[in-house]
Amino acid sequence: MEVIRAVAWSNDGAGVRILDQRELPEREVYRDLRTVDDVDEAIRTLAVRGAPAIGVAAAMGVTLAGGDGERSDDPTAKFARAVDRLGCARPTAVNLTWAMQRMSRVLVRRFSNANGLRQALVEEATRILDEDRAMCRRIGELGSTLIPERARVLTHCNTGALATAGIGTALAAVYVAAECGKHPHVYAGETRPLLQGSRLTAWELRRGGIDVTVLVDGAAASLMRDREIDLCIVGADRIAANGDVANKIGTYPLAIAAAHHGIPFYVAAPTTTFDPATRTGAEILIEQRGAGEVREGFGRVTAPADAEIYNPAFDVTPASLITAIVSDRDVHRAPYNFVGI
Amino acid sequence: MEVIRAVAWSNDGAGVRILDQRELPEREVYRDLRTVDDVDEAIRTLAVRGAPAIGVAAAMGVTLAGGDGERSDDPTAKFARAVDRLGCARPTAVNLTWAMQRMSRVLVRRFSNANGLRQALVEEATRILDEDRAMCRRIGELGSTLIPERARVLTHCNTGALATAGIGTALAAVYVAAECGKHPHVYAGETRPLLQGSRLTAWELRRGGIDVTVLVDGAAASLMRDREIDLCIVGADRIAANGDVANKIGTYPLAIAAAHHGIPFYVAAPTTTFDPATRTGAEILIEQRGAGEVREGFGRVTAPADAEIYNPAFDVTPASLITAIVSDRDVHRAPYNFVGI
Repeated sequence: MEVIRAVAWSNDGAGVRILDQRELPEREVYRDLRTVDDVDEAIRTLAVRGAPAIGVAAAMGVTLAGGDGERSDDPTAKFARAVDRLGCARPTAVNLTWAMQRMSRVLVRRFSNANGLRQALVEEATRILDEDRAMCRRIGELGSTLIPERARVLTHCNTGALATAGIGTALAAVYVAAECGKHPHVYAGETRPLLQGSRLTAWELRRGGIDVTVLVDGAAASLMRDREIDLCIVGADRIAANGDVANKIGTYPLAIAAAHHGIPFYVAAPTTTFDPATRTGAEILIEQRGAGEVREGFGRVTAPADAEIYNPAFDVTPASLITAIVSDRDVHRAPYNFVGI
Repeated sequence: MEVIRAVAWSNDGAGVRILDQRELPEREVYRDLRTVDDVDEAIRTLAVRGAPAIGVAAAMGVTLAGGDGERSDDPTAKFARAVDRLGCARPTAVNLTWAMQRMSRVLVRRFSNANGLRQALVEEATRILDEDRAMCRRIGELGSTLIPERARVLTHCNTGALATAGIGTALAAVYVAAECGKHPHVYAGETRPLLQGSRLTAWELRRGGIDVTVLVDGAAASLMRDREIDLCIVGADRIAANGDVANKIGTYPLAIAAAHHGIPFYVAAPTTTFDPATRTGAEILIEQRGAGEVREGFGRVTAPADAEIYNPAFDVTPASLITAIVSDRDVHRAPYNFVGI
């Protein structure tokens, strides 16, 4: 597969280079983010998205503090403010919290000068980046064992190279299966409202030479009923200790339909997405996004101005509907208990 | 409710006046269709849509044969060609077949001249129009008995005034419930790919003063899980003898989710939508529509050119998932047997 780098250091090392996902699939635009503001805005507007990629981008973003002409008082305080700021850019993905905790632990160490501190932060962010790549690879290897020859794989949203610093989570399993000559065919739900499935998943799979069919989210159940789907595999934004999974809105009805048709439903995510402190899905805060995404998502008004809009970014799939959860450590099966992960 | 007329005779009586639904919710544009070609194109492009409205518009369209400068050979043959042509405009809605059979039966009667024949066809089309309005009213009255006070009602696609010549089918039940002071709140799935839920249902409900919340199709199951939905009610494009229902793509996953959450799932349709000759849903031909609706539906490319598209217009919900079917004659409950309807 041609390498796609959703998040990386800028060539000059003084910024975070992202592939601006708002422009896909029409244009492949890379942007160099130079300030904490830039990174915050990129995460909030989904220029960079996907739970693992958000964590990596935010960690790298912390190192940019002070680059926006901010008055250079106490350097530790300056970076701490960046941690606080970027930690709030989006609420649901726990990878973000986790990455900010990693960066915070650097801040409490002692350094002889501000440059030493910044250098340590850059090193920590680079470790987070490299670890994410390695976790993707390992998820792919473990997940690919669940994918039979010529499997027809239904997925939702984007969980590939564009959602991580590496080859993805759920899609990593597909990529490794393809490397092994299994010829998977992916059915990608378009994933309203922001169409990460049609815009991003279909784009990166085609770049990787993998067959993909795009469908509206409401058409997946018909494919299952027609015995056209062998398995479902999706990513996660947060996994509770009991195995409940928060993921992109539209995941939960797929899990219900898969159970109804006796089709395996898998979740793939790095250990950074597991949140042992959250006991069940009921405790997960679900981000509510603006009405505009539903009312006029594509340059045309598609709902009247006086209709209310309900636009949650995520839903929670209970562990009881999940056949197995693939992490970078294992293929976990029920009963799930991630307290000690 | 302010009266919306999706299909009516033109003011001068020489054409079919439709509300062009491709322009909603931004513009309320009425068009006078003057030829069979016009009507055929309006049905194919969904300027007029909804199974009952399609049947009515096609019946009225038959009377326009010859108006396009066609050489006036045998008048019966001319109208028969219009019946054949319009009967093929879309494949799934059985109302169309039924309306063309009604018009065909006029063609075999004897008339002293061509004007007499045309007049008889106009009368038959007007009867079909009036009957549709009356059936809508009766469905609304029967269906409203299923809607409790302040019910939160989930629906899909558009089944209201815009889908019929009257006040609708599933939405007729909502309109009558509102007339009775029950204050229903409708949750309208946007209904990808063509967004009939957000563009049409939300528009006409707001015109009728009814509260409506629009959501992406994948968000309905979350609402059910949160106990925000009291019942689902949808329309139908064809109902088989055993109670299997073909309806807009995305209906079947709602029915699965409703069953999973123990929420009643109702279907409402006039007797013209029942097809005793089709024994089960497996025999229903499902229209496959063009890739463009999914790939670039709103003036922006949202899927790469080299991804395949799967775009069925309808799905089939098995009778086992349907709590009751409301016709203009009765509230039917399982076991369904519509052979004699």
